[in-house]
Amino acid sequence: MALSLQQKIQDPTQGVYLIGTTPPKMGTEKDKVTEIANKLLGRLHEIEYDGLVIYDIQDESSRTSVPRPFPFKHTVDPREYSLLLSDLSKLDVITYKSVAQRGVKEFNNWLTETKEKYALNNLVLVGSPSSEGEIKLSLPNAYNALSEHHSKFFLGGVTIAERHASKRNEHERLLEKTAQGCEYFISQAVYDAQATIDLITSYARSCKQQGLTPNRIILTFTPCGSEKTLEFMQWLGISVPEATKWRILDSEQSLNESVRICRENLNLILQSCAHLDVPLGLNIESLTNRKEEIDASINLYRLLKATMELNLAEKQLAS
Amino acid sequence: MALSLQQKIQDPTQGVYLIGTTPPKMGTEKDKVTEIANKLLGRLHEIEYDGLVIYDIQDESSRTSVPRPFPFKHTVDPREYSLLLSDLSKLDVITYKSVAQRGVKEFNNWLTETKEKYALNNLVLVGSPSSEGEIKLSLPNAYNALSEHHSKFFLGGVTIAERHASKRNEHERLLEKTAQGCEYFISQAVYDAQATIDLITSYARSCKQQGLTPNRIILTFTPCGSEKTLEFMQWLGISVPEATKWRILDSEQSLNESVRICRENLNLILQSCAHLDVPLGLNIESLTNRKEEIDASINLYRLLKATMELNLAEKQLAS
Repeated sequence: MALSLQQKIQDPTQGVYLIGTTPPKMGTEKDKVTEIANKLLGRLHEIEYDGLVIYDIQDESSRTSVPRPFPFKHTVDPREYSLLLSDLSKLDVITYKSVAQRGVKEFNNWLTETKEKYALNNLVLVGSPSSEGEIKLSLPNAYNALSEHHSKFFLGGVTIAERHASKRNEHERLLEKTAQGCEYFISQAVYDAQATIDLITSYARSCKQQGLTPNRIILTFTPCGSEKTLEFMQWLGISVPEATKWRILDSEQSLNESVRICRENLNLILQSCAHLDVPLGLNIESLTNRKEEIDASINLYRLLKATMELNLAEKQLAS
Repeated sequence: MALSLQQKIQDPTQGVYLIGTTPPKMGTEKDKVTEIANKLLGRLHEIEYDGLVIYDIQDESSRTSVPRPFPFKHTVDPREYSLLLSDLSKLDVITYKSVAQRGVKEFNNWLTETKEKYALNNLVLVGSPSSEGEIKLSLPNAYNALSEHHSKFFLGGVTIAERHASKRNEHERLLEKTAQGCEYFISQAVYDAQATIDLITSYARSCKQQGLTPNRIILTFTPCGSEKTLEFMQWLGISVPEATKWRILDSEQSLNESVRICRENLNLILQSCAHLDVPLGLNIESLTNRKEEIDASINLYRLLKATMELNLAEKQLAS
């Protein structure tokens, strides 16, 4: 009876609440993968969420000369893990796919297999982490191949507010990606509220000027409880304002402090974007497998979901 | 994978969120009953809730000489409607049972049938609406029969803060009902926040003195958009402070005003009872079948659930 994830994403009166996760490392035995999935779902038992986001982790070392704080490890095929999580949880899943490493023919085969063998419907395509290194398939060409493919998918795109902060054109990329078939967006982890507010505002204004209905933007938040996790966030390209960095590192309870910061950031975004009619959503992830960070991400989830639901209910009462 | 209603009620870190409803009137054809149930569930599509509460409406005219604002009508057996709603929604249901009209033998048969034919597990027993009129089975005797019955049920009780306001002993009734097997309580509709705060406070203090863990108290809220609904609430024994009454009746948007009042009342209760460790919950009902009141009850549900969830998440962050 419940709405599907696609229905929720497309209904602006609804909130959308996701949990982001990474597949176990490549070579993990099948039983162990199932055990890891069950453990994750067991921890999520106490919250209500609409679906899971399964990332496709790539070696992004071409993007930066700084060493990766946590060593890069190949993972189990995100589709395997998506199918498993979907079977075990009976929830919808969104599967990320990094497209640059293989050509268009292999990508087409991948799409057929994803639909027929894995029965996955929700995809987010990710381009190359940098313009360095060999790109066998560009993101626009991948979107094009997908739109011409006989299997139909419900397609989301990635959005990075930090790109907007430096280049001021991320809102145009959202419009391009929409023309290329994206029906919603998932952000990189938010620690810089202003960059996100600027992006949402520019996107809403451009949509209005062009008479378009804005797509939903699902904001990713993640707790951060240690200097190493913070370094990793910065390595990933997440912008953390200087004051925020010190607030986390100088706190005796860094994790809880980061949860408070995320909540303040969400409140600020909701207030600043209240007049814009861009439907938002939440995606909460834990960047590490440390038990405390996973527990904190569940607390963060409850706090941010309730904050967003209250905001939506208040809007409905006022309308 | 989700927690059952019983598990949620018994876990103080969880909120519990219910929708209260009345079975269709007696004599309604089976197809029509299914249609009514589907229509209700269709309207609840857009919210997440843990279960449904199905009332057992009785002719309470022995309680008062004031004429009932909406005429009393017998309904379909609440068990029929509970089973139907449970089948259609795949959610847990709580079924009310008014016990005074029949003797203990019939009550025992009713319990057997409820378990074996209807497979219902969650019951709330209701006593006679007044000490006038013939009582064939008292509430304590019904609790006793249930505890000795071979079928086991997860039992809730009714609590009426208005009785606490007049007699100052409702908290003792909660302790008695707990000794008689009740594992949670559902209140009458709350419009008098102070009466509810007084009751919860007295109950928490008594539990502490006796070394008992307080049971969950699920607070019922209902929107009120007209003078007639207000009269009906008062007829049912719901205490509405004078100022609240005029705030609703003098407003140009009575329904929305009543939703705002309910939210203020819940906030006041959450603030005033934050230090008490009594787990709370919500039960939202619409007292009439008017479309606007049902829509308002869905808005009310979203608003109050988000308010309570935020309160719980904040508590967890602080702990």
